[in-house]
Order: sequence, then structure tokens, then C-alpha cells
Amino acid sequence: MKYPNVVALLLLPWFLLAHLASAKKSTYIVHMDKSFMPKAFSSHHYWYSSILKSAKSVTQTSLDSAKPEPKLIYTYDNAFHGFSAQMSKNELEALKKSPGFLSAYADDIITPDTTHSYKFLNLNTATGLWPASNYGKDVIIGVIDTGIWPESPSFKDDGMTEVPSRWKGICQSGQEFNSSLCNKKIIGARYFDQGFRAEAPDIPITMSSARDIDGHGTHVASIAAGNYVNNVSFFDYAPGTARGVAPRARLAVYKVLWSGGVSSDILAGIDQAVADGVDILSISLSTRDINLYENPLAIASFGAREKGILVCLSAGNRGPSVRTIRSSIPWAVVVASGTVDRWFAGTLTLGNGKTITGYTTFPARASIRNLPIVYNETLSPCNSSDLVVDALAQIIIVCNLTMVNTYYDSTMNYLPLSNARAAIIVAEDFSILRSTLFPFPGVVITPTEARVVTDYLSNSSTPTATIEFQQTILGTEPRAAPALSDHSSKGPGRNYELILKPDIMAPGVLILAAYSPNALGPRIGHNIFLSSDYTLLSGTSMACPHISGVAALLKAAHPDWSPAAIQSAMMTTANHLDNTGQPIKEYDNLVATPLGIGSGQVDPNRALDPGLVYDASIQDIVNLVCSMNFTRNQTQTIIRSSYNCSNPSADLNYPSFVTVFFRADQGRTLTRRFQRTVTNVGDGAATYRVKLEVPVNTTMRIRPETLVFRKKYEKLSYSLTIRYRADVATQHRPGSVTWIEQNGKHTVRSPIMVSAGVDFFY
Amino acid sequence: MKYPNVVALLLLPWFLLAHLASAKKSTYIVHMDKSFMPKAFSSHHYWYSSILKSAKSVTQTSLDSAKPEPKLIYTYDNAFHGFSAQMSKNELEALKKSPGFLSAYADDIITPDTTHSYKFLNLNTATGLWPASNYGKDVIIGVIDTGIWPESPSFKDDGMTEVPSRWKGICQSGQEFNSSLCNKKIIGARYFDQGFRAEAPDIPITMSSARDIDGHGTHVASIAAGNYVNNVSFFDYAPGTARGVAPRARLAVYKVLWSGGVSSDILAGIDQAVADGVDILSISLSTRDINLYENPLAIASFGAREKGILVCLSAGNRGPSVRTIRSSIPWAVVVASGTVDRWFAGTLTLGNGKTITGYTTFPARASIRNLPIVYNETLSPCNSSDLVVDALAQIIIVCNLTMVNTYYDSTMNYLPLSNARAAIIVAEDFSILRSTLFPFPGVVITPTEARVVTDYLSNSSTPTATIEFQQTILGTEPRAAPALSDHSSKGPGRNYELILKPDIMAPGVLILAAYSPNALGPRIGHNIFLSSDYTLLSGTSMACPHISGVAALLKAAHPDWSPAAIQSAMMTTANHLDNTGQPIKEYDNLVATPLGIGSGQVDPNRALDPGLVYDASIQDIVNLVCSMNFTRNQTQTIIRSSYNCSNPSADLNYPSFVTVFFRADQGRTLTRRFQRTVTNVGDGAATYRVKLEVPVNTTMRIRPETLVFRKKYEKLSYSLTIRYRADVATQHRPGSVTWIEQNGKHTVRSPIMVSAGVDFFY
Repeated sequence: MKYPNVVALLLLPWFLLAHLASAKKSTYIVHMDKSFMPKAFSSHHYWYSSILKSAKSVTQTSLDSAKPEPKLIYTYDNAFHGFSAQMSKNELEALKKSPGFLSAYADDIITPDTTHSYKFLNLNTATGLWPASNYGKDVIIGVIDTGIWPESPSFKDDGMTEVPSRWKGICQSGQEFNSSLCNKKIIGARYFDQGFRAEAPDIPITMSSARDIDGHGTHVASIAAGNYVNNVSFFDYAPGTARGVAPRARLAVYKVLWSGGVSSDILAGIDQAVADGVDILSISLSTRDINLYENPLAIASFGAREKGILVCLSAGNRGPSVRTIRSSIPWAVVVASGTVDRWFAGTLTLGNGKTITGYTTFPARASIRNLPIVYNETLSPCNSSDLVVDALAQIIIVCNLTMVNTYYDSTMNYLPLSNARAAIIVAEDFSILRSTLFPFPGVVITPTEARVVTDYLSNSSTPTATIEFQQTILGTEPRAAPALSDHSSKGPGRNYELILKPDIMAPGVLILAAYSPNALGPRIGHNIFLSSDYTLLSGTSMACPHISGVAALLKAAHPDWSPAAIQSAMMTTANHLDNTGQPIKEYDNLVATPLGIGSGQVDPNRALDPGLVYDASIQDIVNLVCSMNFTRNQTQTIIRSSYNCSNPSADLNYPSFVTVFFRADQGRTLTRRFQRTVTNVGDGAATYRVKLEVPVNTTMRIRPETLVFRKKYEKLSYSLTIRYRADVATQHRPGSVTWIEQNGKHTVRSPIMVSAGVDFFY
Repeated sequence: MKYPNVVALLLLPWFLLAHLASAKKSTYIVHMDKSFMPKAFSSHHYWYSSILKSAKSVTQTSLDSAKPEPKLIYTYDNAFHGFSAQMSKNELEALKKSPGFLSAYADDIITPDTTHSYKFLNLNTATGLWPASNYGKDVIIGVIDTGIWPESPSFKDDGMTEVPSRWKGICQSGQEFNSSLCNKKIIGARYFDQGFRAEAPDIPITMSSARDIDGHGTHVASIAAGNYVNNVSFFDYAPGTARGVAPRARLAVYKVLWSGGVSSDILAGIDQAVADGVDILSISLSTRDINLYENPLAIASFGAREKGILVCLSAGNRGPSVRTIRSSIPWAVVVASGTVDRWFAGTLTLGNGKTITGYTTFPARASIRNLPIVYNETLSPCNSSDLVVDALAQIIIVCNLTMVNTYYDSTMNYLPLSNARAAIIVAEDFSILRSTLFPFPGVVITPTEARVVTDYLSNSSTPTATIEFQQTILGTEPRAAPALSDHSSKGPGRNYELILKPDIMAPGVLILAAYSPNALGPRIGHNIFLSSDYTLLSGTSMACPHISGVAALLKAAHPDWSPAAIQSAMMTTANHLDNTGQPIKEYDNLVATPLGIGSGQVDPNRALDPGLVYDASIQDIVNLVCSMNFTRNQTQTIIRSSYNCSNPSADLNYPSFVTVFFRADQGRTLTRRFQRTVTNVGDGAATYRVKLEVPVNTTMRIRPETLVFRKKYEKLSYSLTIRYRADVATQHRPGSVTWIEQNGKHTVRSPIMVSAGVDFFY
């Protein structure tokens, strides 16, 4: 029962993988140094076509004459330079000799990783980021996903002003998608399926347009920038007015996911978004575990960042183990997923008057009133056809899933065939607590709560109970919030570990947002599937657009801020405490570390006025890439030829700190020194003094300990030296550096993580 | 699949019958002539107790000394005089010798036979009966039923004025019913369970208060006088603002039905309602087939009518055969049930683009999109476990219920266990078309419509379809409305046939009204039952309170009118045509006769201003009872001793005409002469000329043919002679007498029915 909600997409990845392996001609993505383009070519498109033809003629033999030519799929010219094409391995080898060739890699599979959450983030109309940003007015968020359901009320353009003239995007018509479906909210819609068609010609494209029949893209888009919609709910759970984080921001939608997604399409979508002029890119997707110079999200994000576009990426849903982040991209904001202070409940009232608040999202108002309770130890796993006996007719059955090898899904398959009327499900598996799989009327209670039921059963000859459904509970009970979701992928990054990832946490558990009514909604009974305009989904996919929305608000409030400044503002003001004032926990109630939550839970209103920011230019990022020990071509695949590597540096001016030790270092004491520069974005002169939380087995030295700014926009630097023992017994050591304004309101916090490195995790 | 909706009450009639038969002491209802009460008794209660004690001592032998005494259950003093008591047969025989004894009969079982309908009845805020009556302000409707769910928003008292001082009722507290639950809308609530407890001591009373856990009483009360409630629906069918027919009338609730109902409780409820001061009694109940002098509804209704209370009774749900009315009570308004111009639909869209609008109330938004259609002749009855095969997984199955011995219920039990996702159900059984039994996503289509599906299946190799649910269609399509419901009981009356019954028709099919959330709502899937605050029910039970509501409005508009005048106004203005201008049909599309619809569909706005009324005093009703060939005691059981039978007459001044012939009359020509007097309730002088519709095989003579009224309230008489052949080949012959105002707007129509009598129907 892992990630039931986030695999909403009808993915066929293994089929596709098999297909990719067997194809004689495969799709390759080719990166080119455009400075090599001969002047004779009027555009990059002709140049790439010519290269591809040459590759064919060079490799051709008499036997080959009947073979199809290499086929150009996309050319890319905005996020990076290059093209994708179908060709044979021989043709690829020939092509590699072309002047300007940088790198090439096979097309790959991409997988996709809602609305009380704005309240939980303290966004409000009275003060703070919403009014300061005009609710994100005119900022354009590009969403790279499964498209959009344009008729959703979340995408009405009531209250939106005219589309700015700087916008270069279009509303591409396609299957069941008329170009008039765009409006002042959805200002662009395109779809990219040529890569998928090339890789999987046997799989039909079921909706060849930007229309979302999966729901994932619609959900993500409405979280970021959905308009106000009254009276929405998920079958009466989570009722209220839905709205996106940036309700006045605009959306440009790039559909790149079909029944599977491939790199070439995703690159084409991002490339186009950059050309169209988006301000923020929201990408709730994960690649496979690949090097940064072959990672389409890393490569395209660099190009976007170069154009001033902030890119938000989901951390992935491979938690709770460490080292499960695949998008360890230093130039994107990588987002972890946390809970919100909302709980969906059913109240179990026993015949003796005792009540237990269980978890449920059973999507209807079941009538369960004064029915007998039956507990039968043999049947209690509730996962066999033995349930279908008359003795269990019209009763409430107790299902004990704390037993070995008892799975919730199986229970939920057998119960609807039984004659029982409801179930009390005893479980300690946290993953059930963000499931919306409740086809049968039931509540999930903990083994501790179950003792109240057991006591009652042993003291009553005719035990009965009543269950009320469709309840929504807000606040600190039954659990503090936010807590890190168990699905959220953790650092250190698998492909680069010297920048702390994830960066930040946002709501990503049971988020209510718009959905495609054509997608399958919740099941009820044995085989009845419902449809819904709004649904609850969980995953870092849902966390990412929260950050995209906050970034859009910040962009609107501070149009002059760089992507790095926006990212820094969100990170240094994030909250590492939950709503009970305690450090944010994981689902297992242990304290979460920066490897899980990064800087902590985003706090939009504080991010509006962070005091100091850690800024970074694109050259700073280039210097970081240059330090990564890549070959020249690998490096240029990311940064391209307009930059050089004369000043490589791993010490990016980043608002968090991580250092790692390896197995070979065991027992030794290591030192890492960081240099940082902060810019005063407060209103004028300000003095900051440092406060350190020193990780265990570690010493820290910071110089200076006081920063005295005389005016706004002044930059001051400091150095931080961390000496730490390479001791695997304390492999995760959190700490922090906080600059506290004297006689002022700003605190600027950066998490520190001393962590065991790669080789401890295999 | 008969009457699935009207058996909402958890009746245990056969159990109760068996119990009644086996009880050694039974409950008897005893009617007494109160003029015999000795002056020594300060109240009737002491007198009846004394009589009961005497009966015991007279019959007592030495063996009897341990036997329990006869037990008084209720005394009655308002609707009639008498008591109910548990006693042995010997004791009853002794009691019969008491001075003043009139009659006695064993307690008996009573069975219970919303809200676009106000619009269908043309009630509106601009003109007509609603504004003229102040929406029924201050009229008190007594509802004899299963109690009430006082928390229903339909019973809020927003907009209601203070309770008038004339009201003598109380708000009786009981189980889960605090006396503070009454308000300015529900001004009285009482419960009567002593008769039921005496008859069925082994059956626990599950809610010993006026609280309705069945839903029937709540539904009926809110139809008559529910307040305005926005945004109600039955699972998104029939959405809109609910309101009763008389939204400003008050309700007094008398709960007399438990898990079964008995005469003694019902008599106690009506007796109390009369004492409390209700203006209208709404009784959606039927007795068994018994003589008027043993019929508690007939006896109590006479007492109520004597006090100026108009009594509305449901015709019963034993149609469509003739002679199925059991409440053939000339002094009550007996109400037939018709359809409204609203249709609950699912749209089936075939892969070839053709659409069919089927019937469904599947209570959720099922996702059925482009799924394969499978028709398998062997499986097509869809009523076997053979449906549970993988070949039928994730498809739409075609179920053919036009085959012999194929029942909808059975199909709806097997489908939820199958792996099919939806069903296309081909049926011609009209009763499905008012069923809310749709636990599985499906639409019901006719055999004619099914041909479109069959054609498509034979011309497509991969037939698919999409079904959209939760659609509500208003207007003349697909059927004209109103049509007489097939469940509605028909005349001639079984226990008196010389007054036409039913009197009038009102909406009674799939009426949306308030419901008890504790009652079981619709099933979804195999064994999941939902709960609902509003539900759709069908039956004459739902038609009756529509007439109660209209009567309340008329009472408010014309406080001086007698019950007979109110009844006459409703009947002579009723509409015998449907919304296509054609005569009202039965479900089988044949023209309905007055034996089914009485005068026709109530037309409240016309009833406000009927022109002429057929008035009748209580003495007129006494004269009718006196003509019924009952014994003196039988007669006095109904009319009591204050009236005498000096002027017996079957020619009650009634606004309809019926005459019957018997088997022995076959071939002869018979004559019946009616004398009628009409009162001019128009604004002043008026001239009416008669228009006759003469039944076949019949001649009619009316004198005079013109009535010239010189002033308001003037009374004029006419005689009607009907000569008809006793010819069984034309056993149902409708006709009419209509008085048409010359140069005026009033038309005063009375139906005529020449019908074969009792012995033709056995």
C-alpha cells in the first residue's frame, strides 16, 4: 500500500523499459555547442537536420538502403541547445564526430511524483504575503505535467486582468481541446507527445491534446494558482473554499506525460516554457537515478534558471529511507512533503457510550447505527473469502491488520464482498493514514485505541456500535503538524551531495485540489468507481506546487529578486518547529533532520521580509558545476559554451550547509570551510549576531559573529568552519546557523547537516 | 419489486398478525354511547374503568383469580367515545351487556401507505393561493404517522410567528426527544405506543418518543408544511430548494406507528389531535379491508369532521387493479398518487455518438467512460453468480429483464458482486421507473431504445459506451405528467361504493422531502447502506400530504369555509388533463378514469376561487351513514347518539357522481337520480350553464341547465338523472358535469363514473 495516491498516472514504465531496450532505433537526446553552428544555416533546426543526415550517410552500407532514415523528434534552443532523434547506435556513433557535439544519452522514463493548506501556511487577506503580492498577480507559473482540465472551476478567470503582452505562449488546440479553452487564468496550453510516440508506437495516445485525463496535472496546477471556488470537498471531507497558493497568478500548462513520460518530451516542454516566458516552473516529476549531466530536469533547469526562472522540483516519493532523492539539483528548489493540521475522521461510538475518533475517507454517508460488533480471531485479518458467511451479515467486523502479512489493500478487496456492514480496522501502518482507499465503511484505529474496543467486547454480551463518517478535524489533535511524510524522499542527494537536499518542506499529504472528472476517483463497494472534480492526493508532487505558488507570490512582491534570492528568502525563514512548538517530527515520531525537511516548513509571510538573503548568480552556479569533476563535454552539456570553468568552486553561496564523510574517513576528524555572503534586504541599517546549534561530535567556528549593515542591499560575508568526526554511530547530525537581528524582527536560519556519505548507504 | 419505496417502515405485519391471533387476552376497541354515562362519574375515564372491572367480576370463576385483570389502554373522548382495553373474549362478552355499549372490535393492524411538486402544482409567490393564504399561516396540520426528525432543516421555524393561544397541544418528552425540540413550526409532538406494547409485548419499542427513526412521518410532514431549505437533493438528483405545500402552516405530530401500528394507538393519536385543536389531519395510512363501522380511520375521521377538521387519507398502494381502495370513507378526502414532470436520468452515450436517456437514481457520480459493452444472451438476465467471471471485468454489461421471470431486485443483488463496472438494463416494468434501488451504476432503458444498442453492438467490433449519472430532467419528456401511478389504489370503494373514491390526485411518485438520517437510505454496492437527510419516496402516502397542504392553504385563505367546501373547491377545480393537454393517462398509457384519479390533479390556484361549492353539513353525513343499512349500534359507533337517523339519504351533496350495476342487473337499464345544491362563492351575481360529457351506453338529464345566481352565497339546486345499461363489456364509463360561468372565468367540473359493482370484481 505504498503511495496509492501519487501513482494516479496510468504509468506503464516496465512495458516502456522493455520497449526501449528492444528497439533497434532508439531515441537519443543530443546536446550541441551552438557556437559551432556554421553561419550558412539560417537556424539551429537546419543545422541539426543536416548533422542527422550526415550521420546516416556515413554509416550507410548497401544493405542499409532500405532502412529508415534517422528521424528528428524535437530541436531544443531555449533551456539548452540540441535535439532529440531516433537513430541506430551506428548513426549515434557517427554523429558524435560532428563538430559541436557535446553529449548524447538515450531517452528515459520520467515519473510523476491540494485546500486548507493555505490556512495552515498562515496566508491571509489581512496581512503578509497575499496582500503584499497582490495574490501573485501577473506572475506566470509553468506547469510541466499531465495537462489540465480547463473546465474546472479552479481555472475560471473571474477577477483576473488581461494577459500581459510579454507572454509569447499559445493555446494549442488538440483532441477535445479547443484553443478558446484558455482564458486569463490558463494563458498557455501545449502538449508534447512526439518522444512518447517514437518510443512507444504501439501504445495509443488516448487524449492527444493538453487535456488532462489523469488528474495529476490539474491537481498540481490548482494547488499553485487555482482561483477561488466555494463549497468544494472530497465527498464532504475537507469542505471549504478552494484556492491556490497564488490565486491571482497565471498558469501555462505543458503536457508531457502520457501513459508514461519520456525525457525528450519533458525537455521539449521545458524548452518551450522558457521560450514562452514563464516566471516559475513547477515540475512534480522524478527521473531515474542518473548523473546530473544526463538528467533532463537538471539540464533544462539550468537553462531556465539562466533566464531568471525559478524551478521547483518535487523531492520524490521514495522515503522514508535516506539517500532517496534523485533530483539533487543545486539550481532548483527541491521540495519535501509534510502533513497539514487536518484529519479525516469517523467517530466510532460503542454501545457503552465510549467514543474513538478513527481515520477514514469513506466517500459517502454510510448508515451504521447500533449494529452488533463481531470479533473473530481467525477471520480478523479480513483478507479471505471466509468473510462471506451469513454469521457476519449486518454486523460491524473487527479487522486486525497488526498481524504479520496483513495488507490493507487485500482487506479492502474482501470486505465489500462480505455481508458485514462496516469494519473497525486496527492498524499501525502509517501509510493507511494518508490513503483514500476506503471502498467499505470503516475506521482505522490504533492498537492502543483498540484496547477500548476489546475491553467492551469482553464485558458485553451484545456489543454494538455506531459510526459517523465524513468528519473533518482541524488543529493539533490527534497529531502535531507539520510532520514529515513517510513517502518524502530524503538526502543526501544521490548524484550530488555537497548541497543539502531537499531544500524545504511544504504540505503534501491529503491535499484537496482540482481533479479531472474523467480520471477514476475513489472506489466504493467491490467495483464501483466514482468521479470527482476535486480530490485528495498525497505526495511531494503536491508539496512542490505549494512552493511554486509561494515563489510566485514572492516574485510579485519583489520583482527585482533573483531566483536565488527568492529561494533563500523561503529557506531562511522556514519553520523547523511544528504547531506544538516542538521540532518537526517524522511519522514515526522521531525528530526529523534537514535530510528530510531541509530548512523546514515554508512560512510565506516571513519569506516576504527575510532580512538577509543568500544571493547567487548564474556564474556562481557555473562555478559549482565546474567543480563537479565532469568531463568538459559533460560540463558543457549543462552550462553550454557561453560560460567557462576558470573559477570552479563547490562553495556555492547557498542558504544551507551540508558536509559528508565516507567509510574511508571512519575515525578521523575532518574539516570543511564555507564562505557565505548575505545581502541586507531589510529596510536599512541592521546588526545581526549569530547563534549556533552545533551538531554532536562536531565543533564550529564562525567569523565574524556579528554583521553590521549600514544600509539596504549592502553585502557582508562570513566564514563557517565545521570540524567533525567521521563516526558512523552518529551518521546524521543536525545543527544550524541563525543570524538574529539585534533590536529587530529578522532571524535568518540555515540548517547544518553533518552526514555519512554515499558508501554508508549501500 | 412492488412498492419498494413505500415500505420504508420496518413493518412486521405477519409477525404481528400471528401474535394477535395467538394472544389469549386481546386488545379490543369499545365504542360507547356517552349519554348513558351515570352522573355519579366525574369523567368518562372512571366510567370506562368501572365497566371494565364489572366485566372482569362477572366472568370470574375461582380458577380465574390468578388471571390478570382486564387492562385499560386508552380512553377516547374527542373523535369518538369509548376506550381500548386488553381483555379476554369472556370479558368482552360480559362488557357488551353494559348500558351504553355500542360496538367493539379487535385491535387491528394499520399500515402506512416532496420537492419540485409545488412548482408542478403551479404554486408561486406572485399570484394565487400562496400569497392569498399567507402560505398557510397559522393553520395547524396534524400528522398521524411515525413521528418526526425534529432537527431536519425543514422544521426550522425561521419566519414563523408565535404559536396561537388556541393551541392546546404539548411537546411530549421521551427517548432522545426533549420537549424543547418543538418550536414555532412543530408546535406539538406526542406518541402513542400503549396499544402496540399490549399487542406485541415481545417486540421492543426502539425509540419511545415522537422521534422518527423510520423517515415516513418526517417525509409526510415536510411535504405538507416543511419550511424553506436551500440546496437539498437526493444524492444530487432533484436539486433545489425544498419547501412544503403550506410552508407557513404549523405541524402537530402524533407518532402512532412503531415496528407496526395498531388501531388503538391510531385512534388515541387522532382523538388527541382533535382535542389539541388541529385544523387539518393528514393520515397516510391504510386499514385492512374492514367495514366502515369497524374502521378506526372512518370512525375517528367522522369525529374530526364534526369538529370542523378536514381529514386527508391516502388511497393506498394496491393498484393498479380496480376496487383496491380500503379507505372508502365519504367524509374524508381520499388521495390518489400521480407522477410529476421530473425524471431522473443517466445519459448513455454509445461509441458511435448516439445517446439514450435512461432512468437511474444511482446515488453517486460513477465514473463510466469509454468502457467496452458486453452482451451475452445466457448471462443477460444478470441474476446469477455466473456474472462473477473475469471476462466481464471492467465492462458495461447489458441486462435484459424483459425475459420471463427476470426480476430487477435479483439483478441488483448480483451485479454489485460482479466485476462489471456498469449495466444497461432493458426493462418494460414500469415499477422500476419509480424505484430508487440502484446499488450498481446502471440505466434502465426500454426494449425500443435497446434496439439502438443492439444495432451498434452488431456493427462494431469494439463497442464502448460512457454513462453520466445524477441528471434531473424537467418537462413533458420523456412522459407527459401527471400520470396516475400504477401503485395508486382505485375505486369503487370496497366498503362503500356510492361515493366516488378516490376524490383527487396529487404528486406521489419520487417526491423529495425530509427524511430521518437514522433510517436506512439507498444501498450502494453489495451491502453498503447510505444515510440521507432528504430522500425520494413514492406512494399515496406522499400524495396525501400534498392535499393536506393545499387544504391548509385554502383554510387560511377562506377561514369560514367548511371542510366540505374546501374539499369541493379542490375537486371541482382539479385538472383532468396532463401537461400536454391530453386526458391524464395511467402508466400503461391508457386514459385514466375517475376510479383512478377521482376529479383529477389538484390545482391549488384554481381551488382558491372555485366559483361554486358543494357544501355539506355534518347532518348530511349522518343522513348518509343512516342510509348504509347498518344496525343501530353500528351506525352509532360512527355517528354517536347526538344524531338521529330520521332522514337517511345516500344522496350526499358531493362534488362527484358514481353509480354502479351488479351482475344481477346485467342487460337491464337502470336509473339513478342525484340532487345537488351549489353555493355561489364567487364575487356576486353569476350565470352558469351546464356542459355534459355523457358516458357510453348511458343517457343523462339535468334540470335546470342554467343556474342564475343573483348574489354571493346564494344556493341553487339541480337534479341529474343517469340512465345506464348494466353492460359488463363497458364496465368503466367516465363522464362529467361541468358548470361553466357565462362571461366569467369559473368552471365547476364533477366527474361521473358508471361502473360495474362489487360482484364483477371477484
